[in-house]
Amino acid sequence: MAKYKRYKKDCGYSYTLGIFLTIELITHQSEKVLEVILSTDTENSTGIDKIILLCEKRGIPYSYSDKLINSLSPKGNCYAMGIFSTYNDPIDPNDHHVLLVNPSDAGNLGTIIRTALGFDVKNLAIIKPGVDIFDPKAIRASMGSLFSINFTYYDSFADYIAMHPKHHLYPFMLQAQYKLKDVIPESPFTLIFGNEGSGLDTSFLNVGTSVIIPHAKTIDSLNLSVAASIALYEFTKTKF
Amino acid sequence: MAKYKRYKKDCGYSYTLGIFLTIELITHQSEKVLEVILSTDTENSTGIDKIILLCEKRGIPYSYSDKLINSLSPKGNCYAMGIFSTYNDPIDPNDHHVLLVNPSDAGNLGTIIRTALGFDVKNLAIIKPGVDIFDPKAIRASMGSLFSINFTYYDSFADYIAMHPKHHLYPFMLQAQYKLKDVIPESPFTLIFGNEGSGLDTSFLNVGTSVIIPHAKTIDSLNLSVAASIALYEFTKTKF
Repeated sequence: MAKYKRYKKDCGYSYTLGIFLTIELITHQSEKVLEVILSTDTENSTGIDKIILLCEKRGIPYSYSDKLINSLSPKGNCYAMGIFSTYNDPIDPNDHHVLLVNPSDAGNLGTIIRTALGFDVKNLAIIKPGVDIFDPKAIRASMGSLFSINFTYYDSFADYIAMHPKHHLYPFMLQAQYKLKDVIPESPFTLIFGNEGSGLDTSFLNVGTSVIIPHAKTIDSLNLSVAASIALYEFTKTKF
Repeated sequence: MAKYKRYKKDCGYSYTLGIFLTIELITHQSEKVLEVILSTDTENSTGIDKIILLCEKRGIPYSYSDKLINSLSPKGNCYAMGIFSTYNDPIDPNDHHVLLVNPSDAGNLGTIIRTALGFDVKNLAIIKPGVDIFDPKAIRASMGSLFSINFTYYDSFADYIAMHPKHHLYPFMLQAQYKLKDVIPESPFTLIFGNEGSGLDTSFLNVGTSVIIPHAKTIDSLNLSVAASIALYEFTKTKF
């Protein structure tokens, strides 16, 4: 068993904390798994048995270390960890995209990934600087959905546009002209959302079809993951 | 300045952490505010000046104590706190409701409150056991929206029904018959959601009009606050 430290961006590996997430990791990205660490507490043996079976089937090494689990799991109560190499899984140029401009919250990122996968939008573009997709908090909030999507980080919005000229762009912003309920989506689409605090800057009013989710003035704005989820629902609902 | 301890349910008071939330508290529930505590760090004086003005206008005592702020603010970086008496603000029997059955996550609760207020659904019913609405994490996730809604806790769903016989009930569940996009809402409505992990039990299939937000099988379910937000959007969108 190698030594692993608390996750840092660019350290080359990350990990899943917990039985459910570790099973999702092995199921969807088994070739990226370096090893699996199990707790010696056998109370949760149902899930642990399943992990061991998966590891044996796919030739993934596993071992027991309460010490390592406790050192990497901030909240305790964790019975399994999957250590994996971070990887790239570039977005599909012909499919729909979600584009996040400078997202800063790992929990929001994970929640958006979960909803996007649920509505069959499997390609996530992120404009840097942006929160790291392999942050264990993002993995947790995604409930492991992260292992089933493609993603690409771009240095700038211009770089994204240059690579995906045929996408129909829908920036979501409070100053936008078109109400979400009135938009008839064109394919392939890109749903664009700004940072949690600052949103998209006004230059995006000149990009594609800007969209607003209208709400009462009693709140300043919707939560980012809520806005993205409502948009994903409305853009894909004829499909489900 | 009285002594205050880290929030516990039923201790009779709670608090807002941060300038923004404290301003929301004073603005919407000034008569509930016991006192305001400020940091001696004056770097954020714009917001602090506004709080002092509000306190003076409304006769709310304020004082400075870095020690108290640090003891109650787990993450630091907090410049103002508003201590307030917890209160009841019962739901309006003639208006729309959101009903949460045994919610367990304070962050989800706060996010749902924020979205509900944004879509003008200002009445929240909670079936016990359920997370405490005055948990500082719920206040934070609601971005202070919590101070603008009405809420009532009920011991059971039967108790809720007995009090609100004329509401049209829409339990959201994966086994439901009607797709959200096909439902034509009747007023006043009650949108019903189950616990984060377990959802609503199957007995709710016999309650009102059960509704599903269909999604791909790649995910087990949508996040609770995401599902509630999509439902709130769809049920109120003709209004905005």
